[in-house]
Amino acid sequence: MSTPSLLILPGDGIGPEVMTEVRKVIDWFGAKRDLSFDVSEDLVGGAAYDAHGTPLTDATMARAQEVDAVLLGAVGGPKYDVLDFSVKPERGLLRLRKEMDLYANLRPAQCFDALADFSSLKKDVVAGLDIMIIRELTSGVYFGEPRGIINEGNERVGINTQRYTESEIERVARSGFEMARKRGNKLCSMEKANVMESGVLWREVVQKIGDTEYPDVELSHMYADAGAMQLTRWPKQFDVIVTDNLFGDLLSDLAAMLTGSLGMLPSASLGAPMANGRPKALYEPVHGSAPDIAGQGKANPIACILSFAMALRYSFDKGDEATRLEEAVNAVLAQGYRTADLLGEEGRSPVSTSEMGDAIVAAL
Amino acid sequence: MSTPSLLILPGDGIGPEVMTEVRKVIDWFGAKRDLSFDVSEDLVGGAAYDAHGTPLTDATMARAQEVDAVLLGAVGGPKYDVLDFSVKPERGLLRLRKEMDLYANLRPAQCFDALADFSSLKKDVVAGLDIMIIRELTSGVYFGEPRGIINEGNERVGINTQRYTESEIERVARSGFEMARKRGNKLCSMEKANVMESGVLWREVVQKIGDTEYPDVELSHMYADAGAMQLTRWPKQFDVIVTDNLFGDLLSDLAAMLTGSLGMLPSASLGAPMANGRPKALYEPVHGSAPDIAGQGKANPIACILSFAMALRYSFDKGDEATRLEEAVNAVLAQGYRTADLLGEEGRSPVSTSEMGDAIVAAL
Ligand SMILES: CC(C)[C@H](C(=O)O)[C@@H](O)C(=O)O
Ligand SMILES: CC(C)[C@H](C(=O)O)[C@@H](O)C(=O)O
Repeated sequence: MSTPSLLILPGDGIGPEVMTEVRKVIDWFGAKRDLSFDVSEDLVGGAAYDAHGTPLTDATMARAQEVDAVLLGAVGGPKYDVLDFSVKPERGLLRLRKEMDLYANLRPAQCFDALADFSSLKKDVVAGLDIMIIRELTSGVYFGEPRGIINEGNERVGINTQRYTESEIERVARSGFEMARKRGNKLCSMEKANVMESGVLWREVVQKIGDTEYPDVELSHMYADAGAMQLTRWPKQFDVIVTDNLFGDLLSDLAAMLTGSLGMLPSASLGAPMANGRPKALYEPVHGSAPDIAGQGKANPIACILSFAMALRYSFDKGDEATRLEEAVNAVLAQGYRTADLLGEEGRSPVSTSEMGDAIVAAL
Repeated sequence: MSTPSLLILPGDGIGPEVMTEVRKVIDWFGAKRDLSFDVSEDLVGGAAYDAHGTPLTDATMARAQEVDAVLLGAVGGPKYDVLDFSVKPERGLLRLRKEMDLYANLRPAQCFDALADFSSLKKDVVAGLDIMIIRELTSGVYFGEPRGIINEGNERVGINTQRYTESEIERVARSGFEMARKRGNKLCSMEKANVMESGVLWREVVQKIGDTEYPDVELSHMYADAGAMQLTRWPKQFDVIVTDNLFGDLLSDLAAMLTGSLGMLPSASLGAPMANGRPKALYEPVHGSAPDIAGQGKANPIACILSFAMALRYSFDKGDEATRLEEAVNAVLAQGYRTADLLGEEGRSPVSTSEMGDAIVAAL
C-alpha cells in the first residue's frame, strides 16, 4: 500500500500552534513505528481569506477530496466578524464538510480521570464519563435552502431551512447503530418531534432502521430539550447519542463541557468509503480558535493530538497505535503536566503548548 | 377595577395535581388579602383531545383571549404519542402562545439556597445563581412556513422553516433590554450568526436596538453552542439572556437543570398590552407533565405556585404579594419540607403534593 496522505489545515487562532505539536507526534510515528504519511499543509478559514480572499480555495478543496484524511485546527476570530457571511472563516469548514459529504460527526465526550475535579459538575456525576455523540453534519438547517435575508414589505426577514431526507437520516442512523454495537449497544436519538415535522420524520426513520437492521441495539428517543437536561443531570445514562446538525452542535458542546476536558476532546467527521475502502474523513478538535490566547504558547494541543489518534483508528485502521497515543496522553496527565486551561485557580504553573507536545512525544 | 379574571388550564399528567395546590393559594389570597379572582377552568392538551378530539377548542381559545391571565399546568404524555402531529397535546399550547401573540417567554433560572446541594453541579458554581432567560416564543422554526413532510423523488423529506422578521426580533430584544434594566443591566444575546442568516439578522437587530434605545445596557453576543458551554461552565457570568424560540427551548431547560430546582421553576409568557394595560399573559411551570409520577401525589407543586406568583407580579401589579408568596415557599423549604424530586438518595421521607401545598398556605 502506498504511503497514506494527510492534508493539514491549521486554520486560525491557536490552530497553527496546536498543529505544530501534532506534527511532532506524526514525525515520531514515522521515525519509530514505520508509519509514514505524505503530509501536505494548506490554508483554511481566516488565514485563507487573508491570503486569497476566500476561506477555502478550489485548489485546497480539490486536495482535500484526494487525500486519505484531513486534519484541521480551528477557524474563526473577531478580526473576521465584519466579513460578509459568504466569506466568513466558518464557510471554509462548512464547505469541506459538505463537499466531502462528511455526514457522521463523531464527538466523544470523555472525562479524563486526572481532570475529573476540573469539571463544573460534581465528581461522581462525571468521573468515568464516556459517551459518544454522532452528529449529522452535512444537512439540516446548516445547509437547507431557501436561506438568506430578504426584503418583505417594509422590513427584512432572516430565513433558514431545516430539511432532512429519509436517506440522509438513514445513513447517519446506521452510523449511530454501528457505533452502539461497538460500545454499550444502546442508542438514544434526539429531536423535537413534538414541535417539528422534520423531527417526526427523523424519529420514524431511526426507529425503522433500528427495527429492521439493528433489533439487537436498545433504541430510545428523547426530545432535544429534555436531552440537554438529562445530559446535565446524569450524563452517564447515555452511551451513544445520534442527533441532527444543529442539535448536535449545542448538545455535543454541552457534553464536552461537562467533562471539564474541553481542551482534550477530538472529533472525527466521516463520509462514505472511497475507492481504497477508507472513509472520507476530516479530524478536528472540538474546541474553537480561542483568539484570546492565540500566539501565547498557552493552548492545549491534546485535543488536536487526539484527533490524530482518531485518524489512526478510523482512517488508517491502526487502532493499536491510536491506543498507544491515547495512553501516552494519559501518562503525561498522570505525571502532572497541565496546560493553563487545565489548572483553574490552583497555584501550580502551567506547561506551554510545546512543552506539552514534547512530553507526549517523550511518553510515546 | 373589576375582579381580575384567571383561566386555569391544568392539562395532562401532573398538571391537575399541582393546579389543585395553586387553587388553595389563590383561595388564600382571596380570603386573607382581599385579592379575589374570577377563576374559570378548562381543558388543554391530551385532556382536551380526549374530550373534544382537539388539543384546544375554539371556545377555550376565545376564553384565553378575554381573560386577564392564563395559568397552565402541563401538556403531553406517551398515551398521545400515536396521535397525528396536528392534534398532539403540544399543539394546544403552541396555539395559545401563537394566537395570544405571547412573544416574550420569561424563564428565571434560580438556585434556591436550600437546594444548592441538589444540583449535579458543584455548589460554588450554582449557589446564589439567578439568571433570566428571555426566549422568543411566537416565531422561528416553531411556526415558520413551509413545513411538513413531503414526497420528493422516491423518498420523503421533513421540512421546517426558521424565519424571523426585523420587528419580531426588535420587540423581544426590547423585552430583554427592559428586563436587564430592572436587574444587572447586562444582556447577552445568543444565536448562530456564524452559520445561519437568520442569526445574522438577529444579531444586527439586537445590536441596533441596544445602540439606539438602550445604550446604558451592557450588550454582548454569543453563539448558542458556546452559550450552552458557558452556561455549564460558569453560569453566574450571565444576568439576562435573550434568544430565539428553539435555542431558548434548549438553553432554558439546560439552565433550569443547572439549578437543581427543576420542580421549582416558573415561567411567564407575555404579549402586547391589552386595552386595560395588562399584557396578554400565560404562566406555566418549566417542568413537563411527568407522566411517570402522575396521579401518585408525588409531584412538586412549587413551580406552578411560583408561576402564580409571576402572574401576581407581571399581570396584576402585585409585586409585594408575589414576594410574600415567594417568601412562603422559601420558608417552607427552610423548614425542611421536600417533595420526592427534592430528596435524591437521602433517607428522609418526602411530603406529598398536597402536604407541600398546605405547608405553603400555612406559611402565608
Ligand atoms: C465553527 C462552526 C461553524 C462549527 C459549527 O457550528 O458546526 C462549530 O461550532 C462546530 O461545532 O464544529
Ligand atoms: C411542550 C413543548 C411544545 C414546549 C416547547 O418546545 O416549547 C416545552 O418544551 C417548553 O419549553 O415549553
